Amino acid sequence: MVSQSPFAALPATLAWQEDGLYLLDQTRLPQEIVVERISEVEEVWRWIHELRVRGAPAIGVAAAYGLCVAMQPLRHLSMQDFQVQLTQQASFLDSARPTAVNLSWSLKRMLRAAESSGAQDSAALYDVLVAEATEIHTEDQALCAGIGTHGLSLITPGCGVLTHCNAGALATTGVGTATAPIYMAHRQGVPFRVFADETRPLLQGSRLTAFELQRAGVDVTLITDSMAASIMAQGLVNLVIVGTDRVAANGDFANKIGTLSVAIAARYFGIPFYVACPSSTLDLLTANGAGIVIEERKDHEVTHVAGQPTAPVDIKVRNPAFDVTPHDLVTGFITERGIVQQPFDKNFAVLFASGGGAL
Amino acid sequence: MVSQSPFAALPATLAWQEDGLYLLDQTRLPQEIVVERISEVEEVWRWIHELRVRGAPAIGVAAAYGLCVAMQPLRHLSMQDFQVQLTQQASFLDSARPTAVNLSWSLKRMLRAAESSGAQDSAALYDVLVAEATEIHTEDQALCAGIGTHGLSLITPGCGVLTHCNAGALATTGVGTATAPIYMAHRQGVPFRVFADETRPLLQGSRLTAFELQRAGVDVTLITDSMAASIMAQGLVNLVIVGTDRVAANGDFANKIGTLSVAIAARYFGIPFYVACPSSTLDLLTANGAGIVIEERKDHEVTHVAGQPTAPVDIKVRNPAFDVTPHDLVTGFITERGIVQQPFDKNFAVLFASGGGAL
Repeated sequence: MVSQSPFAALPATLAWQEDGLYLLDQTRLPQEIVVERISEVEEVWRWIHELRVRGAPAIGVAAAYGLCVAMQPLRHLSMQDFQVQLTQQASFLDSARPTAVNLSWSLKRMLRAAESSGAQDSAALYDVLVAEATEIHTEDQALCAGIGTHGLSLITPGCGVLTHCNAGALATTGVGTATAPIYMAHRQGVPFRVFADETRPLLQGSRLTAFELQRAGVDVTLITDSMAASIMAQGLVNLVIVGTDRVAANGDFANKIGTLSVAIAARYFGIPFYVACPSSTLDLLTANGAGIVIEERKDHEVTHVAGQPTAPVDIKVRNPAFDVTPHDLVTGFITERGIVQQPFDKNFAVLFASGGGAL
Repeated sequence: MVSQSPFAALPATLAWQEDGLYLLDQTRLPQEIVVERISEVEEVWRWIHELRVRGAPAIGVAAAYGLCVAMQPLRHLSMQDFQVQLTQQASFLDSARPTAVNLSWSLKRMLRAAESSGAQDSAALYDVLVAEATEIHTEDQALCAGIGTHGLSLITPGCGVLTHCNAGALATTGVGTATAPIYMAHRQGVPFRVFADETRPLLQGSRLTAFELQRAGVDVTLITDSMAASIMAQGLVNLVIVGTDRVAANGDFANKIGTLSVAIAARYFGIPFYVACPSSTLDLLTANGAGIVIEERKDHEVTHVAGQPTAPVDIKVRNPAFDVTPHDLVTGFITERGIVQQPFDKNFAVLFASGGGAL
């Protein structure tokens, strides 16, 4: 019932079974490995909203299956009513989080598949939805593998790699995005070490990245976000790889809060800074970073840790979940089709505008 | 018994009374305000080592009184035995933490006062020690006030000030170092806002800086360390002021881990970056930052928050308590005698080499 991730030691981020959608609760890692069956669309929305399933690619796949969860009990409706509901449910799921483009990309793709299917009744249309979600799922795994293949050569023997947040297997349904080259190099026996920023406020770096890399046997060292520059100053970092939630046409990109700080420090120390980016995360309709909506989350994520208060009562707080890093701080984007270098606007168009693939 | 800080709303960091030394336990803030009487030198060492009393200037004053705590029960000894013990106890206290220069500076000054006192017996020598510790204490308050006077003009109406860790009233026995201009501007009715980095791993920013500024009525917003660059990118920060634990002759300085990251981001965004530095924190015998010993602390500070585990068991960790920021990222040092600008080596010598003051 609980399918395995590509690593025997890790449970899968999600699984679609005959009886519904299974999600791994990432907020309870690393202390507990809890997988729940999700049978209502409101639950899918809440799991995405509460970051119990998170990571741009995983959110995209979960939303696609979430739409199946929503429509499964409505198969008795007339085609017209089913289609009205389908649009409404997709719109509802799309509201769970604003920043990751994969969420809306995946739901739009589900709607397009339904429109062009030629299905004759609601039950058949539902089957189309499940088939499309399964294809998005399979493609996500292939995107991760492609990123691994193209990023592998960046990881040289003896090097130090720094990453921020979790763009790992847990953020996807495959080997991760930023971690794909890491896992591939590790499997090939390349000796190297990884520094994982803990990534306040929600500690995805310590709870998830450190957890999954440690389980896979990668040499990983946990640091606080505030230590990244100091570790760089000591010459221990030769390469930064991070994930992304949305990349604009000019290469400005959104990622977990703190990524901008890492990018600026990498530039200061002359360290190459790469962004692992499946084409499903490219948003060529957004011209630049100014067009990316940044989710502001609740205060208690900053004022409490593990349920314990760590700040004065009623303190004023800012809590943006993401920041936007300008494209000029990026050395390259590692995509499933190859590494894209500057100028990004032109090179994205060359690699992806011809259609096909996930775009 | 519990004397007040310069702010009625804040308890004093420490107090020396007839019956001994009283210390505020800063590890229990902001949830609890606990003051304990310390009657043994081993306790003073432990309180400094465990950061229950912390902040370079406060450590200096606590160590001076700590030496009095050590020697008080030894007043019956012969002069010679008393002096041997005095040197040993000073050496013991000096080992509590390696980075803050104020600790060794204060203890050396206590030993010099004893040597040059001409006291005829141990009881008289003990009185000399208490008098010298009291003078160090009084001077610390004056140093803070001087920094406030000289830094005041940096805080202009409507500006945003970012600070890291706690170089506040709680880090000193006066109005703080980095916070001295903040408190002075606030008293004069200048409208401005402060962003306080929470400062992982020990959260001195959220537990202490946010706490004391909020109590004083300053407009303060708490952010995670990882948000500083993003807040700067939004144009909300016009000035950075941080404290320091040791400044080398060329202006390289040690401060709480994460300061380097803030300095690099400030440079990237063209924001002035100032270091509040009482002359007791200047270490002109250390040529540059390479000579500053950085304390590496225990793993659990990174892997646990408020007693709760937040990382996988047995994960590898780095935990340097400080980093060194190179002098070229510093706009100026705010000292009690004025603001020192580049070139720092020359200008420190001009302002301080003539002796006097705290040096």
